[in-house]
Amino acid sequence: MLFLAKLPGLGPRSARRAVLHLLKNRNSHLRPLVGALTDVDEHIHQCRICGNFDVVDPCSLCTDSRRDEASLCVIADVADLWAMERTSAYKGRYHVLGGLLSALDGIGPDQLGIASLIKRLEQGGVKEVILALGATLDGQATTHYIADRIASYPVSVSRLAHGLPVGGELDYLDDGTLIQALKARRPV
Amino acid sequence: MLFLAKLPGLGPRSARRAVLHLLKNRNSHLRPLVGALTDVDEHIHQCRICGNFDVVDPCSLCTDSRRDEASLCVIADVADLWAMERTSAYKGRYHVLGGLLSALDGIGPDQLGIASLIKRLEQGGVKEVILALGATLDGQATTHYIADRIASYPVSVSRLAHGLPVGGELDYLDDGTLIQALKARRPV
Repeated sequence: MLFLAKLPGLGPRSARRAVLHLLKNRNSHLRPLVGALTDVDEHIHQCRICGNFDVVDPCSLCTDSRRDEASLCVIADVADLWAMERTSAYKGRYHVLGGLLSALDGIGPDQLGIASLIKRLEQGGVKEVILALGATLDGQATTHYIADRIASYPVSVSRLAHGLPVGGELDYLDDGTLIQALKARRPV
Repeated sequence: MLFLAKLPGLGPRSARRAVLHLLKNRNSHLRPLVGALTDVDEHIHQCRICGNFDVVDPCSLCTDSRRDEASLCVIADVADLWAMERTSAYKGRYHVLGGLLSALDGIGPDQLGIASLIKRLEQGGVKEVILALGATLDGQATTHYIADRIASYPVSVSRLAHGLPVGGELDYLDDGTLIQALKARRPV
């Protein structure tokens, strides 16, 4: 129960309910869940190149020859990699940082995959680095930190655009986004 | 009651409740409300230049000499003008369209303040037009329609940036916004 309650999105109350549900359905839920988790533990590895999770190492994205090796998309987390993949808009390779710089949580550059990113740049072949980090304080701090660290390498460094989300109406937007959208206005 | 129920955000049920509340509080609510609405009816005019609402015509934004006459921000609605003003990030003049092109609602160019926009451009002095319309289908259609219509005038035409809203995390974004943010990525 204690361990379930530590899952993101589950509090002590919902953990108690989940445990009761599992106990009442040992054959149909509890044992299959244990089996699936054991399976995940045994077969899912972290890719030694990009940090993605897959049944193979290096992962299938890193070995897919149809993907552009010259483009590297830096994301904070595997969940963000999945978000990018859902769009089908990016056809390059990835680099998972494993988090964002955060003074509050005491996360510094050494805890993130920045050294391994620089190593990949040193191996050559990469022409473009896209810093696809959130438009949050930590995301922006990390974007600027990494841009500084890799400024000396011959790669173009960009970040995701900030502005109106799709479907966004001015009247419902927060001021910060509207200011960003005005500053970064583009020719039509 | 019927008229109250037609207000945006009020359904028949809440309109009934509002009417009952007003009837029970004639002196403290009903009469002051009637007074205030009469006041608005008598004193608030639509600005003949930009379409804003104000107690003076032309409105105080159009006559404010500290605001840049060379920049024109085109918005759909007075609510959007207020949204822009809340940010304090824009120091030019406005032009209220009074809506957006909408095939569904049967709103064509003639129902919007597009002719008056072109008239303002013909009078000269305007160097920049910012199309600050929502990132919705109608907003984008209107943006492109106006950009086409004013392409022959010597003004730079831009639209608000599309991308991650402030505070936006990749994993929670819709695919469309993520695709836009990737396409419009900017150098760091």
